[in-house]
Amino acid sequence: MYGIHAVHFALNNHNRKIHEVLLLDIQDWDDIIAICKRRKIPFNVVKKAEFFKSASQDWVHQGILAKCAPLPALDIGDVDGKTYLVLDHVTDPHNVGAILRTAAAFKISAVIMQDKNSPEENGALAKTACGALEITPIIKTVNLSRTIEDLKQDGFWVVGLDERGQQTIDQVDLKGKIVIVMGAEGSGMRKLVREHCDFLVKLPTNPNFPTLNVSTAAAVTVYEWSKQNS
Amino acid sequence: MYGIHAVHFALNNHNRKIHEVLLLDIQDWDDIIAICKRRKIPFNVVKKAEFFKSASQDWVHQGILAKCAPLPALDIGDVDGKTYLVLDHVTDPHNVGAILRTAAAFKISAVIMQDKNSPEENGALAKTACGALEITPIIKTVNLSRTIEDLKQDGFWVVGLDERGQQTIDQVDLKGKIVIVMGAEGSGMRKLVREHCDFLVKLPTNPNFPTLNVSTAAAVTVYEWSKQNS
Repeated sequence: MYGIHAVHFALNNHNRKIHEVLLLDIQDWDDIIAICKRRKIPFNVVKKAEFFKSASQDWVHQGILAKCAPLPALDIGDVDGKTYLVLDHVTDPHNVGAILRTAAAFKISAVIMQDKNSPEENGALAKTACGALEITPIIKTVNLSRTIEDLKQDGFWVVGLDERGQQTIDQVDLKGKIVIVMGAEGSGMRKLVREHCDFLVKLPTNPNFPTLNVSTAAAVTVYEWSKQNS
Repeated sequence: MYGIHAVHFALNNHNRKIHEVLLLDIQDWDDIIAICKRRKIPFNVVKKAEFFKSASQDWVHQGILAKCAPLPALDIGDVDGKTYLVLDHVTDPHNVGAILRTAAAFKISAVIMQDKNSPEENGALAKTACGALEITPIIKTVNLSRTIEDLKQDGFWVVGLDERGQQTIDQVDLKGKIVIVMGAEGSGMRKLVREHCDFLVKLPTNPNFPTLNVSTAAAVTVYEWSKQNS
């Protein structure tokens, strides 16, 4: 994991096991070092040659790198939330990272993805999430449709974003226990997942230029949900 | 310029001068070829070796490349809009591309940037904009503060996104002639630009995780504007 925000939030997350923090000797790292000492996490201030044994030149590392374990796997029962965001086959780590950041900023209870068709929690995802990986729980399930059905049994309403939706997101009641489902950009939700939604809604966009990036669409949707529940 | 959506929208924009379209011979390009013929734009279906004389391996080119001229420079007087989005020192082409896409989807009149501190309209920006570069006019000015003042003289209200804002975006009246100003992520708007805003507003985010990526913040803001004006 790399980047100041990502590592800083990780250091403050006691569920995150961090093996070592590497700091490039180009600046003062007093804040970070203080947290490492408090949490008894090994750290090293190193020169470029040493740093790039562990970091790639392509990473926007900001001179900071943490070698850490993934967060413990969570089950839906561990969260007990009121609002879930389900991502169906959104595989780009930058999109998932951006969506996690939005989810954290608007207090979504958890993001649910399918085990098989979701990105691994790598450095690129953590960097884009900008710390949100430590705030918003990620739940990975084997079968999304079944998870959605379980949530419905538990009293959740399921709203899917889909261009074929007859109503726009602001025309639907998003109060109470809500699951929001987003599909991959381009292909959208898979048919089976779509069929498990109670409502299909679209965004009120320009008919001549209707599509947004999946992380932008998620931001607009989550904001609308937040407005209705504030 | 590369990528299917970006090139497709460019081909349909009669203000866009396109010198040549290169198509990689891995698929059927009948639609694109038909438009090229109609617009009398030279095109070539080529093999990999030839294609990569003009394309970089890093580009998400989707097998299509257009050699084209930038769009003609526009002045604020050329647009006669009702809503402008001003970007102060947002320099990342991916962020600007994503913001243009949002602007096009919600019918913002134009995006205004400073000549000097904005990205050039390159392939990465065009690809992220996904065609929006052909829909939403970009106006580049020498002095953003002066442009904002001119718009105020013309009856526009100027709303700046800033964490120091006392009100949230949904608490402010965004009807009528509106200018929305966004600063760079991290540093925010420059002081001088901030002082020209009529209101400073923030987004209603989680106090423990308040910041969004600039393109996400723009999406939420533009959606709120769109809601109030629909």
